[in-house]
Amino acid sequence: MHRYLLEDEWLIIEDRFDPSCHKKSESLFSLGNGHMGQRANFEETYSGQSLPGNYIAGIYYPDKTRVGWWKNGYPEYFAKVLNAPNWIGFRIMFGQAELDLNTMTVSYFRRTLNMKEGVLYREFEAAWPDGKCVRVETSRFLSMANRELAAIRFMITPLNFNGELVADLFIDGAVTNEDSNYDERFWETMGHSFRGPIGFLQSRTRKSEFDICIGMYSSMTCGNNGKTIPARCYSTRDSVGHHYCQKVNQGEQVILTKLVSVTTSRDYKKLALLDKSEGILASSQAKGFITLRSEHIKVWEEKWKNCDIKIDGDVSAQQGIRFNIFHLNQTYTGHDPRLNIGPKGFTGEKYGGSTYWDTEAFCLPFYLSTTDAKVARNLLLYRHNHLGKAIENAGKLGFTGGAALFPMVTVNGEECHNEWEITFEEIHRNGAIAYAIFNYIRHTGDESYLTDYGLEVLIGISRFWSQRLTYSDEKQAYVMLGVTGPNEYENNVHNNWYTNYIAAWTLSYTMECMETVRAADPRHFSRLLDLTNLNVEAETHKWKTIQENIYYPTNKERGIFLQQDGYLDKEQLCVEDLDPAERPLNQNWSWDRILRSCFIKQADVLQALYFFENHFDTDTVRRNFDFYEPRCVHESSLSPCVHSILASRLGYSQKAYDLYLRTSRLDLDDYNHEVHQGCHITSMAGTWMAVVEGFAGMKVAANQLHFNPVLPEGWTSLSFSVHFRESLYSVNITSDSIIISDRNYRETKIRIGSFEYPIKGEDILKVQL
Amino acid sequence: MHRYLLEDEWLIIEDRFDPSCHKKSESLFSLGNGHMGQRANFEETYSGQSLPGNYIAGIYYPDKTRVGWWKNGYPEYFAKVLNAPNWIGFRIMFGQAELDLNTMTVSYFRRTLNMKEGVLYREFEAAWPDGKCVRVETSRFLSMANRELAAIRFMITPLNFNGELVADLFIDGAVTNEDSNYDERFWETMGHSFRGPIGFLQSRTRKSEFDICIGMYSSMTCGNNGKTIPARCYSTRDSVGHHYCQKVNQGEQVILTKLVSVTTSRDYKKLALLDKSEGILASSQAKGFITLRSEHIKVWEEKWKNCDIKIDGDVSAQQGIRFNIFHLNQTYTGHDPRLNIGPKGFTGEKYGGSTYWDTEAFCLPFYLSTTDAKVARNLLLYRHNHLGKAIENAGKLGFTGGAALFPMVTVNGEECHNEWEITFEEIHRNGAIAYAIFNYIRHTGDESYLTDYGLEVLIGISRFWSQRLTYSDEKQAYVMLGVTGPNEYENNVHNNWYTNYIAAWTLSYTMECMETVRAADPRHFSRLLDLTNLNVEAETHKWKTIQENIYYPTNKERGIFLQQDGYLDKEQLCVEDLDPAERPLNQNWSWDRILRSCFIKQADVLQALYFFENHFDTDTVRRNFDFYEPRCVHESSLSPCVHSILASRLGYSQKAYDLYLRTSRLDLDDYNHEVHQGCHITSMAGTWMAVVEGFAGMKVAANQLHFNPVLPEGWTSLSFSVHFRESLYSVNITSDSIIISDRNYRETKIRIGSFEYPIKGEDILKVQL
Repeated sequence: MHRYLLEDEWLIIEDRFDPSCHKKSESLFSLGNGHMGQRANFEETYSGQSLPGNYIAGIYYPDKTRVGWWKNGYPEYFAKVLNAPNWIGFRIMFGQAELDLNTMTVSYFRRTLNMKEGVLYREFEAAWPDGKCVRVETSRFLSMANRELAAIRFMITPLNFNGELVADLFIDGAVTNEDSNYDERFWETMGHSFRGPIGFLQSRTRKSEFDICIGMYSSMTCGNNGKTIPARCYSTRDSVGHHYCQKVNQGEQVILTKLVSVTTSRDYKKLALLDKSEGILASSQAKGFITLRSEHIKVWEEKWKNCDIKIDGDVSAQQGIRFNIFHLNQTYTGHDPRLNIGPKGFTGEKYGGSTYWDTEAFCLPFYLSTTDAKVARNLLLYRHNHLGKAIENAGKLGFTGGAALFPMVTVNGEECHNEWEITFEEIHRNGAIAYAIFNYIRHTGDESYLTDYGLEVLIGISRFWSQRLTYSDEKQAYVMLGVTGPNEYENNVHNNWYTNYIAAWTLSYTMECMETVRAADPRHFSRLLDLTNLNVEAETHKWKTIQENIYYPTNKERGIFLQQDGYLDKEQLCVEDLDPAERPLNQNWSWDRILRSCFIKQADVLQALYFFENHFDTDTVRRNFDFYEPRCVHESSLSPCVHSILASRLGYSQKAYDLYLRTSRLDLDDYNHEVHQGCHITSMAGTWMAVVEGFAGMKVAANQLHFNPVLPEGWTSLSFSVHFRESLYSVNITSDSIIISDRNYRETKIRIGSFEYPIKGEDILKVQL
Repeated sequence: MHRYLLEDEWLIIEDRFDPSCHKKSESLFSLGNGHMGQRANFEETYSGQSLPGNYIAGIYYPDKTRVGWWKNGYPEYFAKVLNAPNWIGFRIMFGQAELDLNTMTVSYFRRTLNMKEGVLYREFEAAWPDGKCVRVETSRFLSMANRELAAIRFMITPLNFNGELVADLFIDGAVTNEDSNYDERFWETMGHSFRGPIGFLQSRTRKSEFDICIGMYSSMTCGNNGKTIPARCYSTRDSVGHHYCQKVNQGEQVILTKLVSVTTSRDYKKLALLDKSEGILASSQAKGFITLRSEHIKVWEEKWKNCDIKIDGDVSAQQGIRFNIFHLNQTYTGHDPRLNIGPKGFTGEKYGGSTYWDTEAFCLPFYLSTTDAKVARNLLLYRHNHLGKAIENAGKLGFTGGAALFPMVTVNGEECHNEWEITFEEIHRNGAIAYAIFNYIRHTGDESYLTDYGLEVLIGISRFWSQRLTYSDEKQAYVMLGVTGPNEYENNVHNNWYTNYIAAWTLSYTMECMETVRAADPRHFSRLLDLTNLNVEAETHKWKTIQENIYYPTNKERGIFLQQDGYLDKEQLCVEDLDPAERPLNQNWSWDRILRSCFIKQADVLQALYFFENHFDTDTVRRNFDFYEPRCVHESSLSPCVHSILASRLGYSQKAYDLYLRTSRLDLDDYNHEVHQGCHITSMAGTWMAVVEGFAGMKVAANQLHFNPVLPEGWTSLSFSVHFRESLYSVNITSDSIIISDRNYRETKIRIGSFEYPIKGEDILKVQL
């Protein structure tokens, strides 16, 4: 753990320049607006260690698979989100001296991410070896008001000299990915052009042939009178830019402004991109940087109204939770069902910007509660749109008749991973996708989703399970052989309890949903049968038989569900028995040793106890938690949150808080020494869950919202909002009371602890705890 | 299956030129002499499809690992045997027309591998587009009499024209590997020089820095009078050569002779290589090609005396078995304990020329029976020499205290493979290495090996097993979690019966051997304890406890040993239930589907029933064979032989013969469509086993050789020799008798069927069957 940032409720602040922290800060201070995002790379030249990262949602490249030993069924290509042409570029010279913090003496430095505003600020004073010193202030944002627009203001003042300032503001298409299997170049520059003062760079991704057009408008003013300096346009093979040259006197401030528009062929016809980019800049230029920034901040203000969590009494926790919420909102805004949430969002290349089961299992609850239902609905539609490819994917593995296996890792619906034990065997992901449909409908009440889209997906998944489970004569039951559960520290196990459970649940939920849809809309149901070619009687008969005769490994003596067949054959140790020097295991133990050990990477049995809490009595949850949690090394960032929620529910308050701490400031404090690669975006949603579902004890059951709060010690108050069906609740929890009102003024009932309370119109419900 | 070769008892004959078969023939007609080997590439230019392959035993390059997803414990580099500088090169021109069968019309072609002689012959007549036609006859061999020497004779006659012949005879150092992870160049040319007419090329492998020096002497004579044509020496950056130019009249035969010496820094000091190469050529040049060839053939004649198998009544089988014996002798001559037997020998790059457990499990019996004991002893010493590295290797996986895990794949003792399920888990290889020690001593009676080397290895392996087996409270027994058995169509299984069995056997055999050594040589035993730091009491106590309490999965109902925990949970199908279009499974099914199925790649439970036949009654063997063989797809070339032997023993003669056929002509008939990559050298030894241990029913028990023959129908007689301890038996089997004599004239006893017979001096034992 390494703390180098200042604590503040709304700001992330780095108050001195330490080159060894720069790559971390590039991740932490990242900006995004759902359409695009970028690491907090410096605008000006920086010759020190840096990971350039500039990403456009949904623009990917099918990189050729790299593999040691090929297995049948591996994909030939992996889609990965790309480092895109760099549009933040500034090159600043005074005479022969270039502005580059790596070669200058930095006397003052302050980088601030204002999470309330969504604006990145930087101020510094730095001197060249000859003693000439400048002061620089920058600010930039990726507009939430117009997602194809970004803006940078760069102010520079020579503090102790007069000199000739030469400034090049450019867009550079000659970019590469750090993560490239065969060091290929992914982008091709298609051309550059100018329309009046606006420069354009057009680039195309190889193979996938996405076109983008980045337009750039800039201006320079100098001195107190704000004299405008004219630009000269220039271009090179892969770049386009504006060149400024101006004598500047000591103390005179130069203000450089750069507006950028990014349009892509995902949204427009290729031939229209340039016009679109120009149109955005034309109107933006008229508004000016300050107005544009205000419009941007206003959208953030609106967002924060519904998604903020306010913690009183713990600045560190407050900063942590807002940091997480901020990044979740930057990464996914829900405007486009073709997009999803990569584990690193727009903060790094790792994991290729792809979609994992993280979305359904960990991110969905956040978006369900903090925004309009259509955001979560778009996350579901993403999978529905990939149903055809999921059926193809299952076909490659030998499944037939419309069985669907959604990929483990994907951008466009095709599998993007090649470890057989994951790609082919970590099939519980299919269960999470089914569960998300249930969770969405339970939370929003939007049954139309089921009819229009959800049931079709459920049928595909149930068909998969019904083929993947096979009958064991030996056990006289249906078994699931050769799987990897959520605990990836076990591979190719038989009867992973979690997977068996969610499979059986999917079968049963699908049959229930079929009845719902059949009753609600018989004609539509019949169309659906035609569409899916479903033989209701035969298929549901099989599903029912399987669901009723599925094998669940258990241990009666201990009263626990067994993670998988044979789990108790392992040497039973607890994490506290481990030499701390051997942690994390995944960096210190060989893979076979990890596999043979009883140690658990992340919630596995407990994941089902979290998903299906209402199915199990508290004693059962407790026995399993008491057995499994001490064996869990939490070496996935997705692990502590689920455990924290269960600990809260079991009244293990200290445990819940300890686990929460591991997730809330995971990136800010760089627990895992890897934040330089990017932030753990999807696990940030887990932090939100640990607060709202854990400490506030929120859950949905029997069409009602429940709360059962227990605040961590030291938190004097916890406040947040929750979208639930037609209501928008404001919740404030203190150590002795919970106050709830519905900002939509509806008549509803809510459960607090084991009692039901009505909420009426403008009333404010206050319950003593 | 594709038959394009003629059948003959001693020759492999290709009687027309089909470019599509050329790469196959390059493999099949390969030559080797233990020190070096090469594919049957044409000497002259060939612009068609070819895999150049020229290998020097023990010269390797550590190629950087290629991996999709790194796991702790993977090696950074893999040693692989290299395609070495090409010394067969001839460039033949008549005027502007180059001799190149790919661009000429071939009217006659015959390539012959004389297995009796170990000489490769080729004759052809071919014409250029202008109608000019030449006749060519070549012969070459890699001397068995002087393993650093090779010789080529190349005779060319213009049949219908006079012309100027230009011939370049060269050594070319600019060679590459087809199998190179990062397209690196592996060899560096260190220099070339001439001493008189002898040219030398010196090359060095990068990283591993092996030096080699290839020397070349050549001559050219022309016409009936044998006029000698002088050579001009030349060199380029990476080559050295002799240039000849001579007018040749129609019908005049030109004879080009090339003698080559290959010396390496494995055998000599680097500075001495050139002198050594020169010395070899100086004496060889004096002898001349014909004499050198005679000396070479003579060594082969001697070899054949002891290793030949003669089958009467089945030319195809006769050719097949001799082909296998021939290649085994070419690949490994047992002169150097630093060498071993790669799965492709000197016939291709695949599998990197590395050593697998094939050597101990499949090759050792061949060398034990067909040559002097020191050959097999050197195979064992190879592993003893790697004991230190095996201890290091186990250390990387977390094992301590001198536990040894020999690598799955190796050249120099370091692991050369990176699939976790194989590298870390296919640990039964350790058992085969222990078994080989037992097998060697049982066959040769050489107890000194145990004292001097074997016991140390056994202790290292037993220490590994004792840590790798863990106690299960649940099963109240020692279990072995997370292994891959010989059947690689199962990964990461628990309690693979074969592995558990051979582990327990190792523990018990090690303790027995400790008693033997202690009794025979107490002082040496005590030195060994010091050397291995063995705490006899504590360690053997643990070994004994484990060995007595090991868990063996079984199924009482079926009376079988279970391949692993949960095997019977699989859908129980037989190979005959499979759609032939889905075979081989490894090309048609995804990996997870293979893993989930009950289908078996190669003998697993049955491998132990083969190794330890004396431990099990025939009914047990029969029940297991009847259960497992129908589930075995034999998708390893090492599979049919073990099954064939067991089938012979069980009296399933037709089954035994059918299985034998799959192995004996595997390469000649290219069953698996892969012989162009090289021949299956190690499985060739399995063919030998299927004949000698299967049809002849030979085994060793209670210090005696046993025979229990059942000849396949159509074989009128089967003859072979067997080295056994001090005896050298000649065995002849017909349908109704077995005739045995000891060519070493010793008094011994032998068992045939269930009776014991004495063999005395020059007597010939004949027993009616």
